[in-house]
Amino acid sequence: MSYTAPVKDMLFVMKELAGLDEIAALPGFEDATEETARAVLDESARLCGEVLAPLNAEGDKNPSSLKDGMVTATPGFREAFQQYAEGGWQGLQHPADYDGQGLPKLVATPCIEMLNAANTSFALCPLLTDGAIEALLTAGSEEQKQRYVPKLISGQWTGTMNLTEPQAGSDLALVRTRAEPQGDGTYRIFGTKIFITWGEHDMAENIVHLVLARLPDAPDGVKGISLFIIPKFMVDQDGSLGARNDVHCVSIEHKLGIKASPTAVLQFGDHGGAIGYLVGEVNCGLEYMFIMMNATRFAVGVQGVALADRAYQRAVAYAKERVQSRPVDGSAKAAVTIIHHPDVRRMLGTMRALTEGARALAYVTAAHSDIAHHHPDAAVRADHQAVYEYLVPVVKGWSTELAIDVTSLGVQVHGGMGYIEETGAAQHLRDARILPIYEGTTAIQANDLVGRKTLRDGGAVATRLLAAVSQTLDALAAREEPDFESMREHLTKGHRSLATAIDFILANAKRDPNAVFAGSVPYLKLAGIVLCGWQMARALLAASSDETRDAAFCSAKIATARFYAEHILPQATALEISITSAKGMQGVLALSEEQF
Amino acid sequence: MSYTAPVKDMLFVMKELAGLDEIAALPGFEDATEETARAVLDESARLCGEVLAPLNAEGDKNPSSLKDGMVTATPGFREAFQQYAEGGWQGLQHPADYDGQGLPKLVATPCIEMLNAANTSFALCPLLTDGAIEALLTAGSEEQKQRYVPKLISGQWTGTMNLTEPQAGSDLALVRTRAEPQGDGTYRIFGTKIFITWGEHDMAENIVHLVLARLPDAPDGVKGISLFIIPKFMVDQDGSLGARNDVHCVSIEHKLGIKASPTAVLQFGDHGGAIGYLVGEVNCGLEYMFIMMNATRFAVGVQGVALADRAYQRAVAYAKERVQSRPVDGSAKAAVTIIHHPDVRRMLGTMRALTEGARALAYVTAAHSDIAHHHPDAAVRADHQAVYEYLVPVVKGWSTELAIDVTSLGVQVHGGMGYIEETGAAQHLRDARILPIYEGTTAIQANDLVGRKTLRDGGAVATRLLAAVSQTLDALAAREEPDFESMREHLTKGHRSLATAIDFILANAKRDPNAVFAGSVPYLKLAGIVLCGWQMARALLAASSDETRDAAFCSAKIATARFYAEHILPQATALEISITSAKGMQGVLALSEEQF
Repeated sequence: MSYTAPVKDMLFVMKELAGLDEIAALPGFEDATEETARAVLDESARLCGEVLAPLNAEGDKNPSSLKDGMVTATPGFREAFQQYAEGGWQGLQHPADYDGQGLPKLVATPCIEMLNAANTSFALCPLLTDGAIEALLTAGSEEQKQRYVPKLISGQWTGTMNLTEPQAGSDLALVRTRAEPQGDGTYRIFGTKIFITWGEHDMAENIVHLVLARLPDAPDGVKGISLFIIPKFMVDQDGSLGARNDVHCVSIEHKLGIKASPTAVLQFGDHGGAIGYLVGEVNCGLEYMFIMMNATRFAVGVQGVALADRAYQRAVAYAKERVQSRPVDGSAKAAVTIIHHPDVRRMLGTMRALTEGARALAYVTAAHSDIAHHHPDAAVRADHQAVYEYLVPVVKGWSTELAIDVTSLGVQVHGGMGYIEETGAAQHLRDARILPIYEGTTAIQANDLVGRKTLRDGGAVATRLLAAVSQTLDALAAREEPDFESMREHLTKGHRSLATAIDFILANAKRDPNAVFAGSVPYLKLAGIVLCGWQMARALLAASSDETRDAAFCSAKIATARFYAEHILPQATALEISITSAKGMQGVLALSEEQF
Repeated sequence: MSYTAPVKDMLFVMKELAGLDEIAALPGFEDATEETARAVLDESARLCGEVLAPLNAEGDKNPSSLKDGMVTATPGFREAFQQYAEGGWQGLQHPADYDGQGLPKLVATPCIEMLNAANTSFALCPLLTDGAIEALLTAGSEEQKQRYVPKLISGQWTGTMNLTEPQAGSDLALVRTRAEPQGDGTYRIFGTKIFITWGEHDMAENIVHLVLARLPDAPDGVKGISLFIIPKFMVDQDGSLGARNDVHCVSIEHKLGIKASPTAVLQFGDHGGAIGYLVGEVNCGLEYMFIMMNATRFAVGVQGVALADRAYQRAVAYAKERVQSRPVDGSAKAAVTIIHHPDVRRMLGTMRALTEGARALAYVTAAHSDIAHHHPDAAVRADHQAVYEYLVPVVKGWSTELAIDVTSLGVQVHGGMGYIEETGAAQHLRDARILPIYEGTTAIQANDLVGRKTLRDGGAVATRLLAAVSQTLDALAAREEPDFESMREHLTKGHRSLATAIDFILANAKRDPNAVFAGSVPYLKLAGIVLCGWQMARALLAASSDETRDAAFCSAKIATARFYAEHILPQATALEISITSAKGMQGVLALSEEQF
């Protein structure tokens, strides 16, 4: 089954919820009109639907393979990557100064969603390359930017992020890879990096590895980590490729999903040392990574939306085709397609509501990033940057957690056929299962949300978001129809639960950090449920106020929003209780290791 | 990593919650003392831990394979099955009259849990054989029982259940397999059955297929289905094996999990007709299946408990070993094992609380079955049978749904290593994903719970269970410590939500069946959460009242119960809202097919 990008839904969110028109009014984004956005999305939809989606199952059956240190991508991937590169897609959101298209993140985001929905394994290569480009633009010298970024944007080269080592996963303080200065401004790097996505492959002529390592005299912990460029092939002054560098793929992992994406173990310096170039200042590597990581984490959140939508589309297609059992209300004498059964509707409604809510929050987050980078007023930029930074762990954590539930429901809709690999539903679940783990687990996102994003500013941004939700509640109050009343009732309760949770975190973080951090993931989920519910409420208002759009589209938006209100938002209460009932080292926090 | 059966936990539940002493006092169960139970569990734990658990990963890597119509089990399985058979384990809960051990279901259930925790794929062969034995004991002639049951109990032969056909999954009304009477009392069977677990293999010398088929003059729908015995090899008068019957395995499925368990497509009658023997009366096949299905569905619920526990054990072992990051409360200067981090505790607490609650409800359900079969008073038997029948879809549906969440959390605790197949955590998730599908999807369980188990008796059994929960609430009220207060608060709310849901279902089933059935799965989950919470409350009371047991064991039980109260029970409110907010064909029920 192929994939059809939901361009109409995407444009609705971009225009009605994320403020595409405002974004297009920002300096530098004058070309990002609705018309342009539609043209870009249509073209992206074509590439993803026709070229990349058909390769998705193939990548699962015939993963990337390693032989003699070289990784060969799944047949067809190399050619597809050429098409992707030639179409200029890698440069979509990168600056025109380096041959990018300079489009808003708000326009790039739906394209990234499509890419991931079509073929998550494939999409990871551009996703990591985006990360490398961001890192170089953030911290690289002008010479480094000129040398590497245009080649990454053109797709001639790809990029990787090398953080993890066997003993250093979530905890980068434990990084051991060494960088020895050579006296000529270069370094020789020695160490092992694991879980390197597309760390070795044959889709492009060179790979630019960005690597965290320690100088010999560096302080312990995260304050002693520096960032290095280590190209697979050395790059001459004129940009042509030179000798092979001393970085080698020694194995690739056998994984639950995203099998076409090679996850490499890279060995640096086994033959004298890999030549590396320092990026930015010594010992500031983690800081640069954090700036870049917001972009990568956001993109992983979009992967969650993408896989959820792909699973939804597949489940709907099956539910419209599979005939089984008579309707429970006796409205037909013979068996009907299962989409007529209330429980199947409930499953599809859950999948759809979660996906639409997560998409809306992600696109709104992208718009905050655009304003944060392009608004002429520095104070406005700072405000939006702060909101963007609050929302990134929510988008990353919540969209990826729900992707597991949605893809699992996708299997369930298929019944026994869902368990058979040929059906394709199970692949989405297997692929989705990595999302809440890589680029920082949900717990890491939640720690970030509690620590850096809520406590550090005394809850200022969180409170601002709560005030914005209140405004939407006021708008709902002006309408008396049941759809609006139901949304107002449940969003009000959700808003109250989120406010209570934030108060609890602010009040207890110092005196009872264990209790607060035991509730960090429930807090992230609560924020996700309520803030996505807020977007669903805004969608409800938008869909009911515009008479020009087609009625079927709008009534579906209204029904989905109400479903979200009655089936998703009520979970907020349970999360509030989880968060606020933790006190000190009691309960399971108090058990000894032996009691587990 | 191996598996250690939690014998102490199991005995606690058997004795304190499921009333082992009362069961041992029933006629015919005099031998089932605590001492015997302990000895049986210890011996079962040894077999499962030493023989079957080590084969689990092997079965995943080297699934059963098909060649020339013959299936070869994973290396080691055949020998392990010999040990299982020779130990008499297949006969544990079957009558001594047919060479079984005649032990209570309450004693057999922990052994079945162990078997499934050790090796789910392997355990499916005995599980389906149990089903075949039950079906024959229920509906077979004395001659059929004598001929087949002792061989099934001894493990010389195994059994299968053949219900599903390509067009007939949840909807058995659509079964097309034909049975043509031969005039000599036998039938010739023609048709295709799919998803037949252990439908062909080399672990035993014969396979007894129980097959649903239609006679030529049978009425349409479920009232025209008869049940047949179709042995793989014909059985002579003296019990020796004769000619090969005309049933052949034409393919086995490529599945997400339980890979060592061959899922066969069986072709009946391609070479003249498979010889079959009618079981019981013509056209009563589905009725017999339903009697037997309660047993099989219950066993699948136990599989959910089993896989949840296995995933929990693996996650705990990893969390005690993996060093990463300093504690959030600053209590150590260096990185610690991750079991010290509050979020990891929350994940392990969730896994543990869900698993213990589900185990308790399953064992209590087994005890009801024992009383229903062995109590001298017919009225008492009928009462317990009714409670058993109410609880079976709850145990099946809820334990299997939570098994997905628990095994998925097990992956999450492992971080990136969880996604690597060699770690073993991902296999449990893949294996668990079939549980809410086979032997009736969660929706089918929920329809059963709403229709046959709640509406048919006007909510009588449901109300009786609510009254029993109230008694436990009274016992909690007598205690003033915070653990008891917290449990009372949350169980009271859960009890109220369940009562509200039952009232809603009773009031609306006739006038608004779509609304009621849209809430059927939420109702099943609500019943699961509240009734397991009731068992956790009973465990809390038992653990706090017994001074003789060791303190560490009891304080862990108390902490886990409180965790359940504060983190699981609060979900009841959201489910109540999901159920009661549905009205008529509104919202996603009202959308046209095209709107999806």
